Amino acid sequence: MKREAIGFICLWFSLFLSGGAVSLAKINTPRFPSPIVQPEQLSVSTPNGLYKTKYFTQSLDHFNFNPQSYHTFQQRYLINDTNWGSHSSPIFVYTGNEGDIEWFAQNTGFMYDIAPHFKALLVFIEHRFYGKSKPFHGDKDVAYSNSSTLGFLSSTQALADYATLILDLKKNLSATESPVVTFGGSYGGMLAAWFRLKYPHITIGSLASSAPILNFEDITSPYSFNNIITRDFRSESENCYKVIKGSWQLIEDIANKQGGLDTLRKSFRPCKNHISAGALAGWLETAFVYTAMTDYPTPSNFLNPLPAHPVKQMCKAIDDPATGNDTFAKLYGAASVYYNYSGDATCFDFYDDSDPHGLGGWTWQACTEMVLPTGGNNEESIFPASEWSFEGRASFCKMAFNVEPRPNWITTEFGGHRIENVLKRFGSNIIFFNGLRDPWSGGGVLKSISKSLVAIVAERGAHHVDLRFSTSEDPKWLQDVRKREIHIISQWISQYYQDLST
Amino acid sequence: MKREAIGFICLWFSLFLSGGAVSLAKINTPRFPSPIVQPEQLSVSTPNGLYKTKYFTQSLDHFNFNPQSYHTFQQRYLINDTNWGSHSSPIFVYTGNEGDIEWFAQNTGFMYDIAPHFKALLVFIEHRFYGKSKPFHGDKDVAYSNSSTLGFLSSTQALADYATLILDLKKNLSATESPVVTFGGSYGGMLAAWFRLKYPHITIGSLASSAPILNFEDITSPYSFNNIITRDFRSESENCYKVIKGSWQLIEDIANKQGGLDTLRKSFRPCKNHISAGALAGWLETAFVYTAMTDYPTPSNFLNPLPAHPVKQMCKAIDDPATGNDTFAKLYGAASVYYNYSGDATCFDFYDDSDPHGLGGWTWQACTEMVLPTGGNNEESIFPASEWSFEGRASFCKMAFNVEPRPNWITTEFGGHRIENVLKRFGSNIIFFNGLRDPWSGGGVLKSISKSLVAIVAERGAHHVDLRFSTSEDPKWLQDVRKREIHIISQWISQYYQDLST
Repeated sequence: MKREAIGFICLWFSLFLSGGAVSLAKINTPRFPSPIVQPEQLSVSTPNGLYKTKYFTQSLDHFNFNPQSYHTFQQRYLINDTNWGSHSSPIFVYTGNEGDIEWFAQNTGFMYDIAPHFKALLVFIEHRFYGKSKPFHGDKDVAYSNSSTLGFLSSTQALADYATLILDLKKNLSATESPVVTFGGSYGGMLAAWFRLKYPHITIGSLASSAPILNFEDITSPYSFNNIITRDFRSESENCYKVIKGSWQLIEDIANKQGGLDTLRKSFRPCKNHISAGALAGWLETAFVYTAMTDYPTPSNFLNPLPAHPVKQMCKAIDDPATGNDTFAKLYGAASVYYNYSGDATCFDFYDDSDPHGLGGWTWQACTEMVLPTGGNNEESIFPASEWSFEGRASFCKMAFNVEPRPNWITTEFGGHRIENVLKRFGSNIIFFNGLRDPWSGGGVLKSISKSLVAIVAERGAHHVDLRFSTSEDPKWLQDVRKREIHIISQWISQYYQDLST
Repeated sequence: MKREAIGFICLWFSLFLSGGAVSLAKINTPRFPSPIVQPEQLSVSTPNGLYKTKYFTQSLDHFNFNPQSYHTFQQRYLINDTNWGSHSSPIFVYTGNEGDIEWFAQNTGFMYDIAPHFKALLVFIEHRFYGKSKPFHGDKDVAYSNSSTLGFLSSTQALADYATLILDLKKNLSATESPVVTFGGSYGGMLAAWFRLKYPHITIGSLASSAPILNFEDITSPYSFNNIITRDFRSESENCYKVIKGSWQLIEDIANKQGGLDTLRKSFRPCKNHISAGALAGWLETAFVYTAMTDYPTPSNFLNPLPAHPVKQMCKAIDDPATGNDTFAKLYGAASVYYNYSGDATCFDFYDDSDPHGLGGWTWQACTEMVLPTGGNNEESIFPASEWSFEGRASFCKMAFNVEPRPNWITTEFGGHRIENVLKRFGSNIIFFNGLRDPWSGGGVLKSISKSLVAIVAERGAHHVDLRFSTSEDPKWLQDVRKREIHIISQWISQYYQDLST
């Protein structure tokens, strides 16, 4: 049961390889954060009140001057000027990640929460090739058709898009003196951090939340991601960890027995009759991974609604004495926390490959530059032992896109090795937030590098929990994190105005 | 007599436009520095002793992932390990500019002069599309055939080339711990500065000599370049300035007279019979511009051999009482300082468009991103009044390459506006050297920005004079400049090793 995690949010591709054996290659696309609007906010701020939608005519390629580079596309951005003070008041920009920007805007409540205090204009820029910002006349079928069109989907092009759009927007708003602060979570957080490093003349500082910028090449162990998930579950109960850890072999054993698939069907209620050990395992793993990532201290609504502290709830289900020794009942109970918190579902689709937030382009990114070695499992892992394999990635990418990943490119372009030495003497004004419950935190910057390159680490935090809308139930540590972020951002802005006036 | 300076070194393109009138559009390519090997060094260090030639397989496009981006080309670099101490000793890299890298290596004596002190490995990397580093199998005819191939010639691609090559070289030399220091002059100096800003994880600091990184958009006046030339000549004698300033109209008047071209022929000795006021004026302007740029305190050999203080020598010729009121004799004497210092020439080619150092690609760069507004002339200018015109550039580029310049791109990608505010709070370890005799100094960083972003300004210095081989006749101010540069570079290196050990 070989697994490979590609990215932030899982998508599944069943690849039936030739050779008699049916194999399931799991290709994950971004398992990223999802700070979700709380119901109380949704009732106050409908999307219509949250932003206006605009478009910017963007260059297809910023870095070469071939005739095709001059082609343009419409890049979407969302804007909210409700609180904007004057034409020199701050502009807060979200550097969009791999999905529909409306989803990010609706779910990055922190920017809305602090806008009044800073009298800030809010701008959320959609990443090229996602949402409504697809080149080739917005035609997804063309844009995603092959490597000749998908080739323009890259992080460096996206950063240059943001630079170009922001400068143009400031000019059009007669706001060339406004300080810009950039925000992002997960891949968007990586982009925010890199944007400050590469475009310090455009942004005065970045809040890079849960940005695993060190999860490249050999900097972070490929076991790190799943080891943190392991730690999360184990921290709730040793039994919970052991039951999950033991379940993978059990599922395989039962599936291989006469009538075993029927047992699995009865235990896990697939909507469709077809079931396999691999699909079931993938379905369970997804639940564990996402739940660890979004192990928030308050109820949330990621891809599915979740209770507060959902990992604890999963382990409660597993440790429930009522299920006795019935491992499948325990797993079903745990999975139900993630897949059926509302209690409405009567069956489950183990082959669900729907993509409501338009994350599909990540598979291309993971096949070119975004080679984050994750998903390896050492002996201690809650998942079956396995090794991260670049070759596995490369052969998938060859098959899927006929493209060859460039695994060293990100560290060549953005660095990462010995980051503490490099940035100790260079750069400023980045907050790296990480929650240690978040499996991505292993690839994050966990120690402050200098006075103004600050790591904020929340032991009990999950994937960019800081960026979510505040709620009245937020624990003190989370309130404190946000207070500290606001304080640091205030300092950047004060310093900017002070420099401007001298 | 409308003139437009495009770049560092002049090349001339006669464009015979339709419509009856024969017009001469002057398109200058890089008027850059040329620190030239002194004869005494040449006798010691022949090119064969100066470096070994190597090639690196380089990607055609770093920033997109289209199939064509995976094409490769052979990038030349030169290497000298004579003084290299150990595998953690420094590596000094010259970030090649728009010409044959051998020319730069042979003429950047400063790196050779200081290598023993630092036990440094020397590496000179050739800029893509120049010298022997042409994509498309090194075939210039293909590489330069149209915008589809030339499109890959850009500064950002060149910087990414350097990053990729340096990392690979360090790995191959088992020298991953070696600190890299980058050097460059003129456009190469711009690249060195930008390389430190964009790739601080690869270079610990840059000496950016005579790098007019502020000569973009509206940051520096388009009059600046020629006003500095004006100041140079005027500083020698008011009469010298007045004679040159008055000559342009005189040439035009005489040329328009019956038999006037004969007068010009007799005065200026063209090798070919054809002569025009425009060609003559261009020939003279080139002499004045280059001489001002390379107004070195010791004899030098740029495109042509020159005496020490050549501007002074030109003005001496102009002020020479022996020539009385014969303006053409004065001009001829001045031009002879530049074109015939050896005294061997018996006639001159006003239409010389030879390109011995392979600088032709600059015209493409000037037509895409390298839009440096220079060459405008206000009333005070030593050249006829004229305005820099982006439209003029754009229409030339349309005609020459069917390409549209992106005049805002460089400031979008690299910044420039309010650089003192931006870099006061960001970045470190760049020396910006400028000599105030150098017309390009107007677009340079002339004030230190922070403790480690240091401007060194030499009132009597010309275009990257600091990078030239030292000679026994160097004035004290030049010795002091180099001492200061060596001191700062030493500090960078000490700090690096100190950080490494902690």
